[in-house]
Amino acid sequence: MNEAEKIDILSKLVSFKSVNDHEKQVAEYLQSLFKKHGIESHLVPVNGDRANLVAEIGSGKPILGVSGHMDVVDVQAQNWKTDPFQLTAKDDKLYGRGATDMKSGLAAMVIALIELKQNHEPFKGTIRFMATAGEEVGQEGAEVLQKSGYMKDIDSLLIGEPTGYLTVYASKGELDIDLQSLGKAAHSSMPALGNNAVEHLINVINQIKAQLQKPMADATNSVLGKTIFNVDVIEGGTQPNAIPGHAKAVLNIRTIPELSNQKILDLIQEVLDNYNATTSGKVTMEVGMNIIPILGNKNSKLLKLVQKIGQPYLQKQNYTTDQIKQFEQQAKLSGIPFSADEILAVGVSGGTDASKFFIDQPNNCNYVVFGPGNNNAHQDNEYVSKTMYLDFIEIFKQIITEFFA
Amino acid sequence: MNEAEKIDILSKLVSFKSVNDHEKQVAEYLQSLFKKHGIESHLVPVNGDRANLVAEIGSGKPILGVSGHMDVVDVQAQNWKTDPFQLTAKDDKLYGRGATDMKSGLAAMVIALIELKQNHEPFKGTIRFMATAGEEVGQEGAEVLQKSGYMKDIDSLLIGEPTGYLTVYASKGELDIDLQSLGKAAHSSMPALGNNAVEHLINVINQIKAQLQKPMADATNSVLGKTIFNVDVIEGGTQPNAIPGHAKAVLNIRTIPELSNQKILDLIQEVLDNYNATTSGKVTMEVGMNIIPILGNKNSKLLKLVQKIGQPYLQKQNYTTDQIKQFEQQAKLSGIPFSADEILAVGVSGGTDASKFFIDQPNNCNYVVFGPGNNNAHQDNEYVSKTMYLDFIEIFKQIITEFFA
Repeated sequence: MNEAEKIDILSKLVSFKSVNDHEKQVAEYLQSLFKKHGIESHLVPVNGDRANLVAEIGSGKPILGVSGHMDVVDVQAQNWKTDPFQLTAKDDKLYGRGATDMKSGLAAMVIALIELKQNHEPFKGTIRFMATAGEEVGQEGAEVLQKSGYMKDIDSLLIGEPTGYLTVYASKGELDIDLQSLGKAAHSSMPALGNNAVEHLINVINQIKAQLQKPMADATNSVLGKTIFNVDVIEGGTQPNAIPGHAKAVLNIRTIPELSNQKILDLIQEVLDNYNATTSGKVTMEVGMNIIPILGNKNSKLLKLVQKIGQPYLQKQNYTTDQIKQFEQQAKLSGIPFSADEILAVGVSGGTDASKFFIDQPNNCNYVVFGPGNNNAHQDNEYVSKTMYLDFIEIFKQIITEFFA
Repeated sequence: MNEAEKIDILSKLVSFKSVNDHEKQVAEYLQSLFKKHGIESHLVPVNGDRANLVAEIGSGKPILGVSGHMDVVDVQAQNWKTDPFQLTAKDDKLYGRGATDMKSGLAAMVIALIELKQNHEPFKGTIRFMATAGEEVGQEGAEVLQKSGYMKDIDSLLIGEPTGYLTVYASKGELDIDLQSLGKAAHSSMPALGNNAVEHLINVINQIKAQLQKPMADATNSVLGKTIFNVDVIEGGTQPNAIPGHAKAVLNIRTIPELSNQKILDLIQEVLDNYNATTSGKVTMEVGMNIIPILGNKNSKLLKLVQKIGQPYLQKQNYTTDQIKQFEQQAKLSGIPFSADEILAVGVSGGTDASKFFIDQPNNCNYVVFGPGNNNAHQDNEYVSKTMYLDFIEIFKQIITEFFA
């Protein structure tokens, strides 16, 4: 495939407005593209206009999973300098929603498979390509594939999310907890008639922080660091003259294996039960996002291959001193060691489809994230380096070939 | 004046949409009404379409102030069964915005003055009638009159706010304090990049409550009870994935002379200064409503007159046992003793124009609130009893006459 064709495929992917929906249209396009190149694939429906796509090349064991998601986050078009759904080139930059996260990674994987197929190289095993729906909100597509058994015989999984020239093999879990406080509204001159929902909520948040303080202090993961607790939203009351009858808050907790999501939920429930039993408060919780931490195998064959094959591309970057300083600063703030000389394997806070794919085997799984892109995922004027995109096609081909060697 | 004329005047007052504005139109109407009956009056401008009206009858000392406000609170017209700005009679009830709070009290005072004037009775002193603008929001009209010297020679002040057949001579002060917390927004996976404004705000509220706990416990007023502290509004953050960079809260504090508004503000400022100096938080306050407690003289001549003259009207009410039980219940919740046999003199939480009128002499002033109305002030389908409205015209005439006797 020549460069123009490779850009065309990415351009076509970007043109689908698969904003938390309509991934089925992307899947059907990829199915027809595979078919044109002699690769069979099938849709695995999610619901509505949503579907995953699965394709296999080769046969037998081992099975290498390669995966990317087809959905993108929403755009605020007025903030964009170009049409976010029309890939636009400027110098080495290709602009568009999903250029980084992660239609370039998805396109690079698809093209790598097509070119490997065209070369008629025999594999000692199977490549299982899985394009997913709904990664950005709840990872429903990956959940469907995992529950349908597509993960149970997989040896290693490569996800093409944007890392650029570092690689991720572990990610924190995440809990969003909605706290609802129900009191009774009243004029603030007659507090005996009311029951202040905001004050109950603040009391409960204080008690939850006290309850989690020691467990959080005691638990550390050498790759992922500490549990992170944040009160991200709070809201209650509407006017200075009225005792608020209702209030709510959202807690966001980034979790590590040493202090599990369930343990945290149990500790919080204990606070609520005790508070509601001993005061006039009525504070309840609802669990929103609940994804577990994934701690991959640092010594997996796949991870070693990614580091070896990626290294020359990293060095090709010719980073300026200023750029390196900036990388160092970013890495430091995220608690990640940084070196401009080797592909670093790190743990990160943000999750991927792996949280669903590896739900039954979250520790020591052969899980690697490596794909084209930069740190402007989800932002206005998202872009990817054209060079990096094209390089990753070669990188993916080489990783897959050597994995089966 | 016959009954129809008395109802007409109230009806005309209700027809003005003096919702926190346009009191000048009410004042001009009252001025022309007074003029028709030979009473001179003058407008005291507030600003824009707002003004107070001042009229005097008689001359020399003592000076008895009689006062009512011309503004009303807003309506949600869709919740009303009748046009809120058209006085509508049904049985003994007259419906309309301000029917209770307090266009009936204002009309009764105006008619009492006109009838006293018509009788040509000589007073040994002066009645100073003051109709005010903006009582419901900040009491700006009363503030202007006080600053212009209209209070400095007054012996006693009767305010016609709706009490029905009890009377008020003391009211708590009120402080609205806006707390603003400034942090730094960041993705919640990278807390080191952010500064959680909600958590700083919660910490500060905790510290303020701790700081005020002992002073509040130590201070009690025998008439007004305890200081009341409420967090009435809190707001910060918009999404579960982001560390909030900004948050705010509104504290509402009902104050008593034993723990002054200024002392409370000083204690809170101390918390803020200390918190901002020792943490990464930046929490500031802005004082909204700031009205001081007023503690009138329980033995004033005016108060004794109100109790004596009101008593036969109270007994005329022929309350049912159920009504009396309800009154008792309401009184209990407000911390007010209740008896169906005598006009009770009480302190209340809600303020009046007195907070500005008596700003230089808040303790032991000759301050009495007594006027027609019930407990549906500010509510949908507000009404006043026609009988009570007409009775208060007689009551006001008698109080004024006996005051100068």
